[in-house]
Amino acid sequence: MSEKTSKQRDLPTVLSRQIVAKSRLLRIEAIDLKFNNGELRQYERMQGSGRGAVMVVPFLDPETILLVREYAAGLHSYQLGFPKGLIDPGETAEQAADRELKEEIGYGVGKLTALKQVSMAPAFFSAAMTLFVGEELYPEQLVGDEPEPLEIVPWKLSELDELLIQPDFTEARSVAALLLMQRWHQAQQNEK
Amino acid sequence: MSEKTSKQRDLPTVLSRQIVAKSRLLRIEAIDLKFNNGELRQYERMQGSGRGAVMVVPFLDPETILLVREYAAGLHSYQLGFPKGLIDPGETAEQAADRELKEEIGYGVGKLTALKQVSMAPAFFSAAMTLFVGEELYPEQLVGDEPEPLEIVPWKLSELDELLIQPDFTEARSVAALLLMQRWHQAQQNEK
Repeated sequence: MSEKTSKQRDLPTVLSRQIVAKSRLLRIEAIDLKFNNGELRQYERMQGSGRGAVMVVPFLDPETILLVREYAAGLHSYQLGFPKGLIDPGETAEQAADRELKEEIGYGVGKLTALKQVSMAPAFFSAAMTLFVGEELYPEQLVGDEPEPLEIVPWKLSELDELLIQPDFTEARSVAALLLMQRWHQAQQNEK
Repeated sequence: MSEKTSKQRDLPTVLSRQIVAKSRLLRIEAIDLKFNNGELRQYERMQGSGRGAVMVVPFLDPETILLVREYAAGLHSYQLGFPKGLIDPGETAEQAADRELKEEIGYGVGKLTALKQVSMAPAFFSAAMTLFVGEELYPEQLVGDEPEPLEIVPWKLSELDELLIQPDFTEARSVAALLLMQRWHQAQQNEK
């Protein structure tokens, strides 16, 4: 048993790093490590853009959030989730959130509240994504790079249990964003 | 605006698939797609093991869950999260969950309840992970392939707000598992 707080242990020593595979978009790096007990391991990890990403739970009105249904090549199926995307060079996370909403659902956003920064399989990726709630939407469309218009799916806050069991609502970051939004929303209601 | 339920659109047609990069552990596939509006795109996706994975929120006692702090090469830091791992060939998800607990925290598990199956960045991955709650733990250690013993971190259910803001508790699947466990736990309490 050990300590709750994140007193970081001494990190393993990186003995060498090498790009072992590379495609148009992705790079795989092999990393030779020596742990502090002397154990040697070679791990592989993905080199990302290092740019970070955003995801937004957008409120159309106080009772309704918006999702998108989009083709996901990894699963080769359409998946339901919240609007998201990479932060472009020079953008803040908030600016990226606003732009992605304009591209994906045709709304700008007046008010953004950060819920949490999350990672994805940190054994392999350095990707960080900030999860936001978006309020005060106003119609404004920007053209994104999507091959087809995304299906926009409104959902009532009173029906979140149903959303959680939708077979195409699986992405862990969307699930985390939904449940963190719900905690935030309950705290907002309690303040009133 | 569109339909809530997952009436799947016709999927894009896969024109060709090709492994474009390959390392010891990972394979990147390029996939040429024709969407139903005629748009052509090349996407890249990772080929995983196809074996699926599990994660468990283990209850040491009715008030206490257990986490592990483990080195994560992608972030090059120690990260706090729930015990997890791939399903080995021939194993059920439940057997994998029990084995991973024995390897990572030194407990077998008497009772497993599935919370949800989640995906991770389904645009790139096909990986599916089943999130469980584990109860009725009993001491039993199996040797895993970890380079060093994992730090085991008990956490009181009364202090989950504090866990959510720990700087090293970031993995989206652990966050989703925690919040789904909390919903499940509240439902259990309400039944009593």
